[in-house]
Amino acid sequence: MNVLDRLAALRAAMKEAKVAAYVVPGNDPHASEYMASHWCEMQWLSGFNGESGTMVVTTDKALLWTDSRYYLQAGIELKDSTIELMRESDIDCPSVVDWLAENVQGLVGVNPEMFSVNDFSAWNEKIALKSIDLIKPLWIEGRPAIPQDKLYPYSADFAGETVESKLARMREKLVALHGDAIIVSALDEIAWLLNIRGNDVEYNPVVISYVVLKADKCTLFVDANKIDTVARNYLDFNNIDVQPYEAVFEYIARLSGTVIYDGARVNEALFEAIPAGRKKINTKSPILIDKAHKNAVELEGERIAMRQDAAALTRFFKWLEEEAFANGKTQTEWDLMEKLHAFRDMGENFVEESFGTIAGYKGNGAIVHYAATKDNCAEVKPEGMLLLDSGGQYLDGTTDITRTVWLGGEIPAQAKRDYTYVLKGHIALQTARFPRGTRGNQLDALAKQFMWEAGITFGHGTGHGVGHFLGCHEGPQNVRTDNNPTPLEVGHIVSDEPGIYRTGQWGIRTENLITVTPAKQTEATTTEDEWLTFETLTLCFYDTNLIDMSLMTDKEIAWINAYHERVYKETAPLLNADEADFLARKCAPIHL
Amino acid sequence: MNVLDRLAALRAAMKEAKVAAYVVPGNDPHASEYMASHWCEMQWLSGFNGESGTMVVTTDKALLWTDSRYYLQAGIELKDSTIELMRESDIDCPSVVDWLAENVQGLVGVNPEMFSVNDFSAWNEKIALKSIDLIKPLWIEGRPAIPQDKLYPYSADFAGETVESKLARMREKLVALHGDAIIVSALDEIAWLLNIRGNDVEYNPVVISYVVLKADKCTLFVDANKIDTVARNYLDFNNIDVQPYEAVFEYIARLSGTVIYDGARVNEALFEAIPAGRKKINTKSPILIDKAHKNAVELEGERIAMRQDAAALTRFFKWLEEEAFANGKTQTEWDLMEKLHAFRDMGENFVEESFGTIAGYKGNGAIVHYAATKDNCAEVKPEGMLLLDSGGQYLDGTTDITRTVWLGGEIPAQAKRDYTYVLKGHIALQTARFPRGTRGNQLDALAKQFMWEAGITFGHGTGHGVGHFLGCHEGPQNVRTDNNPTPLEVGHIVSDEPGIYRTGQWGIRTENLITVTPAKQTEATTTEDEWLTFETLTLCFYDTNLIDMSLMTDKEIAWINAYHERVYKETAPLLNADEADFLARKCAPIHL
Repeated sequence: MNVLDRLAALRAAMKEAKVAAYVVPGNDPHASEYMASHWCEMQWLSGFNGESGTMVVTTDKALLWTDSRYYLQAGIELKDSTIELMRESDIDCPSVVDWLAENVQGLVGVNPEMFSVNDFSAWNEKIALKSIDLIKPLWIEGRPAIPQDKLYPYSADFAGETVESKLARMREKLVALHGDAIIVSALDEIAWLLNIRGNDVEYNPVVISYVVLKADKCTLFVDANKIDTVARNYLDFNNIDVQPYEAVFEYIARLSGTVIYDGARVNEALFEAIPAGRKKINTKSPILIDKAHKNAVELEGERIAMRQDAAALTRFFKWLEEEAFANGKTQTEWDLMEKLHAFRDMGENFVEESFGTIAGYKGNGAIVHYAATKDNCAEVKPEGMLLLDSGGQYLDGTTDITRTVWLGGEIPAQAKRDYTYVLKGHIALQTARFPRGTRGNQLDALAKQFMWEAGITFGHGTGHGVGHFLGCHEGPQNVRTDNNPTPLEVGHIVSDEPGIYRTGQWGIRTENLITVTPAKQTEATTTEDEWLTFETLTLCFYDTNLIDMSLMTDKEIAWINAYHERVYKETAPLLNADEADFLARKCAPIHL
Repeated sequence: MNVLDRLAALRAAMKEAKVAAYVVPGNDPHASEYMASHWCEMQWLSGFNGESGTMVVTTDKALLWTDSRYYLQAGIELKDSTIELMRESDIDCPSVVDWLAENVQGLVGVNPEMFSVNDFSAWNEKIALKSIDLIKPLWIEGRPAIPQDKLYPYSADFAGETVESKLARMREKLVALHGDAIIVSALDEIAWLLNIRGNDVEYNPVVISYVVLKADKCTLFVDANKIDTVARNYLDFNNIDVQPYEAVFEYIARLSGTVIYDGARVNEALFEAIPAGRKKINTKSPILIDKAHKNAVELEGERIAMRQDAAALTRFFKWLEEEAFANGKTQTEWDLMEKLHAFRDMGENFVEESFGTIAGYKGNGAIVHYAATKDNCAEVKPEGMLLLDSGGQYLDGTTDITRTVWLGGEIPAQAKRDYTYVLKGHIALQTARFPRGTRGNQLDALAKQFMWEAGITFGHGTGHGVGHFLGCHEGPQNVRTDNNPTPLEVGHIVSDEPGIYRTGQWGIRTENLITVTPAKQTEATTTEDEWLTFETLTLCFYDTNLIDMSLMTDKEIAWINAYHERVYKETAPLLNADEADFLARKCAPIHL
C-alpha cells in the first residue's frame, strides 16, 4: 500500500464506523517522549518521517500539523500525497481541535490509547469524539512489533531503595488518597517503582508495560518473552504478579473499589476500561512526585556519572582542539557527535546517550531542536562558534550538559557579550538561595535578568527536571515561565540552561544539572523559613575566552574559579597526564 | 440587646429556619476592602470591633475567627460573651469551612449577599449551605443606614475617557463574550465605568450601588437621595437609567438572554436572582481588566498627584528633622500621622487619605498591619528607625508611598545592611526590562534576590495594583509569589515595596508606585519580543544615611542620583526656598 491506498482504506473504514474525521496524533499509549516504531502510526499513514505531527483525515481532506523543524522535510515527503501541511508556527494556523470544531460535522474518531484522559476530555468539550482504533486493522503488513527486549532488575545499590520499600510507600499513599487501586502507564514511573530497566525505547532505559498497584497485589502487564529467568525470579521474589501486556484492559475492567489515575499520563482507553459505577480519582501521580525526590544513593550515583561525563568531555574537547583540525582536516557536525559518543562509551557504566546530541555549528546553533544527520549536516572548521548539547545514561545516573565553545578566529564583541549574559544568568540561577516553597517560575528571571537588561530573551524553558537513569526530561518540577505550581524541593534535579540565539550567526547555551539542597541559615536570617539552594552536579569547564570580563562581577569570577578548581580536582583522577594537563589549562583561574 | 441577647435571638431564628449553624463573615455585598458601618454585622453580633473576622454560631457554641492583629483586642472585647476566639495564625486552627464540616450536622445558614459566587460554591462543596439573612430581622435598632452621601460626576478631564466611550467599549466586550447583560457589583468598577465618585466608604471615593449593563440600557441601582440635580442631569445625559438600590434583585430576575458575571466579585444573592434556565457565564470582569490599563490622562494625573504628595512629604520630613523634637519635644506615632495628613491636606485637589497611615516606630515597624491609634501608640524620640507608609486620594490620582528613615543616634551595621538589601531589590524591580507577557510573579524574585542571598525574606506581597482616584489596592495585576496568571501590561500601576522586619527592633520598607511602559529595543535585541519596563511615579528621596555603600553597585548609585535629581526638579517648584534647600540637601548626589 502507498499513502494514497492507506488514505483510501482509512476513509472506507471511517465510513463503516460512521465517523466524519479520524485523528492520528503521533503519540503512544504511555505518554512517552520517545516512541517505539510500533506506534508510529502518523508516519505510516502520511509517509512523513518527522518525529512530531498530527494527521487529520476527513472524507475529502487530509492534513498534517507539524512544527517549524519539519516544514522542509514535510514539504518533500508529502509531495503527491494529497496531504496538506498545517504549519503550526503560522499565526493563523488553527489548533487541530479548533480546526475540527470549525470544519467537521459529526463524530471524530480517535484511538483512545493515544490520548491522555485529560486531553481526550478537553477535546471532547469542543468536538464529539468516538473511541475507535481504525489503524490497527489496516496496518498489519510491515508493522514493527512492540519491542521484545529483555527487562532487567535494577539493583537497589543504584536505586537506593528496595522495591519492597517503594511499594509499601506507595500503598500508604494509596490509603491516604482513599484509593483501592492505582493505574500506572508512564514507563519511567513503572521502571522507578519496580526497580526495573529495559531497552525498549531509544535514550530511555524503560520497559513497555503497565502496572496496577493494589493494597494486596502489584501486577505488571508486560510481554512474557521480555522476562528471562533472572527477571522472573526477581519479580516473584518481590511478589510482583505478571500478566500479558494486553491483559491490562480486562484486569482494569474487573477492579473493585476506588481507582486512582493521573489523567495527564494515563490514556483514555485504560480509563474507559474502568467499570461504570467505580469511583475514580484523577490526581497527580504519587509515583511521579516521589520519583522526582532523588535519595542520597541516587544523588551520589549522579555525582559518579558526572565525573565519567567530565572525563569524556575533556577528552572530546582536547581532541577537538589538538587533533580534529590538524593538518587541514575538517569535520562535520555528525563526526563530532560520533566522536563524543565514542568518548562517552569509554566511561564506566555508560549505557547509551540520554538524547540525540545537538552539535550546532555557527548559525545551526541558533536553530531550536537542530538535529544534524549523517547525510545532512554542516562542515566544521577551526573557526566560529559551536554549541554542543549532549548527555549520557549511566547505570549510576543520567547526564545532560551544554557547552558552547569558540573554535578559532577573532571573536566578535557581541558574541562575547551574548556568551557572558548567558553565563551570568546560568551562575545566578545555580547560586540562588531561596525560601522553601519557591517555584521554578519564580527563579526563572534570575537566569534572564542580564540578557533582559540588554533586550534579549529566549523561548525555551530555562530548566527541566531530570530522572535518575531514566528520562532526561521528567516532571513535575521545572524552571520555566509557565505557572507550574510545583515548588522546588530537596532532591529535585533540574537543568540550568539559558541561551541566546542569533539567526544565521550563532547559538549560545550553557547548561549544568543542579540539585536542590538545604541552605544554611545566615546570621542575618530574620524568619523561620527553611532555606534552599542548589548543588551543581555537572563538571565541565566553560570557554573562558568567550567571557567579556568587563561585564563580570568579582563574585561571579570567584564562583567560576572555585567551580573550575572543583572540576579539575574531581575529573583529573580519571585522566591520563596529557589530558589532565589540558584540563588544568582550561581550568586556570581568570582575573579581571 | 447585649451580645448574649443577640446570640439568643439568632439561635431562636436559626431554630425557626432549621439551620444548625449560622455564619457572619464580615463582608459587604460589594466585595469591598473598606466597608460601610451598615454592614458590620460581625461586629454587631459579637461585640468585637476589629476590622476583620468571621462569626459562627451553632446551637451551643459561638466562635469568632480573626487574625493576629486582633487577638489582644478580641480577648478583651469577647470577655463574658460566651464567644470563643479562634486564632487564625495558630497552626492547628481549622478554617471556618473545615470547622463547620467537622462539627456541624445539617444546614449552615449564610446571607448570600455576603459571599461571592465563587466562595459560596467552594464552601458548598464541603458543607450544605442555606441562603438566608437572619441578621436583618434582628438588627433594626441602632443599625446605621447605608451611607446617603451624594454621588458626583467625575470629569472626563480627569478620567481621560467619556462614559459614552467606556460604555461603548464594554458593550463590544459583551458581544465578544456572547453575553446580553453583565452584572457589576464592585464599587470601583462602577465608579470607573460611569465616571462617578462618592464618599460612601472610607479611603475609597466610591458610591454604594449596582450596575447592570445591556446592549440597549445601562441601569444604576442607587438610593435616590444620593442623586442631586447635577448628578441627575449627568446620568440622564449619558442615558444611564436609575433605579433604587434594592431593585437590582427584581431587575435581574427579569433578565433575558445570557448573563455575564465575575464570580470572584459578584455576590451569591445577585447570582441566585438570575432566572433559572438563563445561560450564565462566570468570567473575569472586563471592566476590572480595562480599568487597570490607565490611559494617558490618568497617568498624567498620577504624575501631578505625585508632585503634590512629594511636596507634602518634603514638608513633613523637614518638620520632623527641624521642629518635631526641638527643645526636647517628643511626638507620638499618632502625632506624626496627623501632621502628615495636615501637610497632604494643603495639596491641590487632595480629597482624603487613600488608607490609614502606618507610622511604625522602632519595633512597631516590624508588626505587619500595625495601626497606631490616638490612645494606643508609641512615643517617638529623635533616635532609631521610623517606617512611614501613607497615601492620598487626589482628584488627579491615588498615591501610596513608604519611606523608612533614621531619626538619630548611631545606626547599627545590620540596620544599614537591611535597608540596603531592601533598597537594592526596590531598585532592581523598578528598573527591570522584561518581554511582553511577563507576569508579576516572575519579577518578584528580582526584588528579593539580595535579601535572599543574605537569608532574609518577607511575607507580604512585593507589589499590588493601584487605582486612579479609586482603590489603593486593585487587580488583576500584582507582584506576588502566587501564581496570578495576569501579565504586566502597559498602563498597569503597581507598588514596589520590599521589606525586612526584625521583631522588636525595626521594620524597613521602601515603596514607590511604578507604571508599566514600553521599553525601547536595544542594539542587542535578537527577537521580535516587545519589551516593557517601568516608569517610577512616586517622587521622594531615600534616607541615604541608611545605605551601606559597600553593598551598592555603581549602577545602583547612578540610578539613585538620577532619581534624586528628578525628585528635586519636579518637587522644588511647589516649595518655598527653605523647603527647597532642605530637599536639595536630601537629594545631594552620593558616592562610593
